[in-house]
Amino acid sequence: MRTEFHHQLDALNTDLAHMCELAGEAMQRATLSLLTVDLDAAEQTITELETLARLRHDVDHAALTLLARQAPVASDLRAVVAAVHIASDADRMGGLAGHVARIVRRRHPESALPSEVVAQFSEIGSLAVDLADDAASVIVDGDPVRASRIRDDDAAMNDMHRRLFSTVMSPQWSHGVPAAVDLVLLGRFYERFADHAVAIAARVLFRSTGQTALHPGQ
Amino acid sequence: MRTEFHHQLDALNTDLAHMCELAGEAMQRATLSLLTVDLDAAEQTITELETLARLRHDVDHAALTLLARQAPVASDLRAVVAAVHIASDADRMGGLAGHVARIVRRRHPESALPSEVVAQFSEIGSLAVDLADDAASVIVDGDPVRASRIRDDDAAMNDMHRRLFSTVMSPQWSHGVPAAVDLVLLGRFYERFADHAVAIAARVLFRSTGQTALHPGQ
Repeated sequence: MRTEFHHQLDALNTDLAHMCELAGEAMQRATLSLLTVDLDAAEQTITELETLARLRHDVDHAALTLLARQAPVASDLRAVVAAVHIASDADRMGGLAGHVARIVRRRHPESALPSEVVAQFSEIGSLAVDLADDAASVIVDGDPVRASRIRDDDAAMNDMHRRLFSTVMSPQWSHGVPAAVDLVLLGRFYERFADHAVAIAARVLFRSTGQTALHPGQ
Repeated sequence: MRTEFHHQLDALNTDLAHMCELAGEAMQRATLSLLTVDLDAAEQTITELETLARLRHDVDHAALTLLARQAPVASDLRAVVAAVHIASDADRMGGLAGHVARIVRRRHPESALPSEVVAQFSEIGSLAVDLADDAASVIVDGDPVRASRIRDDDAAMNDMHRRLFSTVMSPQWSHGVPAAVDLVLLGRFYERFADHAVAIAARVLFRSTGQTALHPGQ
C-alpha cells in the first residue's frame, strides 16, 4: 500500500520532471533563437526562466517539509535528498539556456553562427532537448532505456563540443576572434547542459540503489 | 546545552570549511601553474582534487546519516540540507580549478597568458583564493564582515571578467583566436568559482534565517 509519504514523493517527482521539461523547452527556444536570429525568442527564453525558478523554490520547500514532517529513512530519505539536487540541476539547465539566449541578444541583429556551423548547432540543440526529456522520463519511471540513451547522447555531445573546438582553434578559421569566442562559450553551455542531465540520471539511480553508476563530466 | 546533534553538525561544518579551503588551495596552485607555466603544479592540482571528492562523499554520507538518525526540524534541518548543497558547490569549485590546470597542461610548454594579462590573472587568482577562504570562515562562524567581503570580491571578479572579455573582443587584440578562446574560458572558470563562493555564503545565511540574502550569478 502506498503511504501518504509516497504520494507526496510522487508529487515531488512530477514537479522535478516538469522542471526538466521546462529546461528542455527553454533550450529548444534558445536554440531556435540562435539558428534563426530571433530576438523575441531569445527574450522569451530569458523571461520564462522565472517559472523554473519558482518551481525550484516550491520543490525545495516541499522537500524540506517532507523531511521535517515524515523523517524518512533509507531509500525514502535518499529520494528526497536527490530531489533537492535534481531541482538544482534542472534550474541550472534553464540558466544555461538563458546564457545561449543572451549571446543571441548581444549579437543581434547579426547571427552568432557562421553558416558552416549552423547545421552542427541544430544537431547540438536537438541532443540537448532529448537529454532534458530523457531526464524527465528517468525521474518519473526510472526507464533504463532512457537512462542509457542519456549516456549515449552525452557522449555525442562531448564529441560535437570537441569538433567545434577544433574548428575554431584551427589555422583555417576565418571568422575572427569574437565569433570564435561566442562559439566556444555556446559549445560550453550546451555541454554543461548535457552534464546536468547526466547528473540527474545518476541521482535517480543513486536514490534507488545508494550507488552512483553514471559519472557526469566536471 | 549542546546536543549530540549539534556536535555532529559542527563536525559537518568543519569538513565543509575544510572543503572550501582545499578548493582555494587548488585554485591557488592552478593560478601559480598558469602564471609561471608550471606543468608539475598543474598536474598536482588535478591529482589533488581526489581529496576533495573523497571529502564530499564523506560529507554527503554524514548528512544523510544525521537526517536519518536525528530527524532534525526547522533551522537544524535547513542546516543539514544546506550542508549537502555547500559540499556540492565546494566540490565544483575544485573542479573549476582543475579546468584552469587543464588549460595550462594543454598549452604547455607555451604560456596560455599573453604578457599584458599576466598581472590581471594574478589579481583574479588572489580574489578567487580570498573568496574560498572567506566562504570557509562564513561556514564556521557566520562572520558578517567576511560575508560582505564575499559580495564585494564577487563584484570585483565580475568587473575583471568583463574587462578581460572586452580586451579579447576588441579589434586591437593581436594574439589570435586560440589565445582569445583560452582567456575567455579561463575568465569564465574564475567567475564561476566566485559564483559558487557567493552561493555558499547565501546558503549559510539561508540555513539560519530561512531567507536568502545574496543572489549568485547564473
